[in-house]
Amino acid sequence: MNADLPIPPPLSPAVPVFFISDSTGISAETMGNALLLQFPSVPFERRLMPFVRTVEEAREVRRDLDAAMDSGASPLVFLTVVDEAVREELRATRAPVIDFVSGHLAQLEERLGVAGDHAPARLHGVGDSRRYNRRMQAVEFAIEHDDGQSVRAIEKADVVLIGPSRCGKTPTSMYLALMHGIFVANYPLVDEDLAGEVLPASIARIADRCFGLLTSPERLSTVRGERRPDSRYASLEQTRWELSRARRVYDVHGVGFVDSSNRSVEEMSTLILQSLALRRSTP
Amino acid sequence: MNADLPIPPPLSPAVPVFFISDSTGISAETMGNALLLQFPSVPFERRLMPFVRTVEEAREVRRDLDAAMDSGASPLVFLTVVDEAVREELRATRAPVIDFVSGHLAQLEERLGVAGDHAPARLHGVGDSRRYNRRMQAVEFAIEHDDGQSVRAIEKADVVLIGPSRCGKTPTSMYLALMHGIFVANYPLVDEDLAGEVLPASIARIADRCFGLLTSPERLSTVRGERRPDSRYASLEQTRWELSRARRVYDVHGVGFVDSSNRSVEEMSTLILQSLALRRSTP
Repeated sequence: MNADLPIPPPLSPAVPVFFISDSTGISAETMGNALLLQFPSVPFERRLMPFVRTVEEAREVRRDLDAAMDSGASPLVFLTVVDEAVREELRATRAPVIDFVSGHLAQLEERLGVAGDHAPARLHGVGDSRRYNRRMQAVEFAIEHDDGQSVRAIEKADVVLIGPSRCGKTPTSMYLALMHGIFVANYPLVDEDLAGEVLPASIARIADRCFGLLTSPERLSTVRGERRPDSRYASLEQTRWELSRARRVYDVHGVGFVDSSNRSVEEMSTLILQSLALRRSTP
Repeated sequence: MNADLPIPPPLSPAVPVFFISDSTGISAETMGNALLLQFPSVPFERRLMPFVRTVEEAREVRRDLDAAMDSGASPLVFLTVVDEAVREELRATRAPVIDFVSGHLAQLEERLGVAGDHAPARLHGVGDSRRYNRRMQAVEFAIEHDDGQSVRAIEKADVVLIGPSRCGKTPTSMYLALMHGIFVANYPLVDEDLAGEVLPASIARIADRCFGLLTSPERLSTVRGERRPDSRYASLEQTRWELSRARRVYDVHGVGFVDSSNRSVEEMSTLILQSLALRRSTP
């Protein structure tokens, strides 16, 4: 054994985190994780407990929380439960609780001068069925119009994402469709389009609905190399050429664009929706 | 004019709601909308202001908020901003603010005995790039393995969703792939499978990863009728037969299932993940 090796610091045990909700728990997880990200040095071990609807179920969950507390683990509990009896049962745990509902709901009731329902409402349920059905139809549309496969109903597209192959068009299309009910087609820009600085013929007449993606030549080369190692397609020379030409196509045709190299589909979708003022105003 | 007609109540003007964030605003919207759902009688008009990062940008937003306040509209502001200077600038508005960060972050700091970063962290950014890349690969996998189109890499599937045509397999697959990085294939159960009470041959050996969807005969008939009106495919007789046989297939082969007739893709995905204990523990 080498005596010069530094002694590793003791592994700090992960803090158990419980997300408890009367519905899917998506709100509790989203908001809770946003806060936990502020503590990058602390390891967390997350557990979701969705659909806790009755006082009996809450009592069982509370037992789990108290057991975690008694084991000395110092858990954290994030809570989005609107029924007061269920919530009070859960809040009676000895574990510390971050309650995303009570305080804010009281604040809203005071501001709006109206009492809240205090009954589980399904933000991530079917809810507004017109909006929900539109999201489902948008997914179908996105799959049919993925990667220029079809232009059958292209005139129904709210947005056409364009760009060189492997810039992130497909997942961004799916996100916009699934989460926002936007009808998105996506269309690759191939060498001929790029060389001629033209939009593909079938989408040229809807240039105002096009939105371009770009990335860095290095990243594109890496992503393409995973599929076709050592190919011309994945070469830096090729990705540099395609991206600079794509940028030129966007400029010539007045197409907005976003760089996907350091952005997630969520971030790109937010920028695209802002840019196209397509944001739906209903939840 | 008929004097017996009831006088309609005056249309109450919508309450303007601002979601303000230093990132995409997805957390502010998710949590804010969960709370607003408690007031179904109040009309809201939502506006997202994402990526507010500097005090200067915050000052401009504050002017908009104050203007809304001065117009007598009584707006509501939901805030997820972690930088204190930016947040204080926004909180200085005369409009009422629901701040999802300050109080809860202080509570966490006290519990964890660690100071938070107080710098914008990108919950919906690329973040953990391994996890992010997995989500992107999962979308590709789901598209390739949609509707039994391919079984090329079926052995890589974490889940295979099965069920009669139009029960919601495709959007549920996309949601699990895109949001959770789960490799999902989906496979239709056709008349031969249903009549013989068998799983399709290409997935029979991975029955333990199959998960079935069901819905109500009425709903399935409606959904199918939109595509092929007055067809045998859309008839109640046919949907009743298919669904009862599908249920039987699930029972015979020990396949878990969920009824999609009154459930959203988010709710089904939560149930599927719980059932298969596939929930990823990282954010």
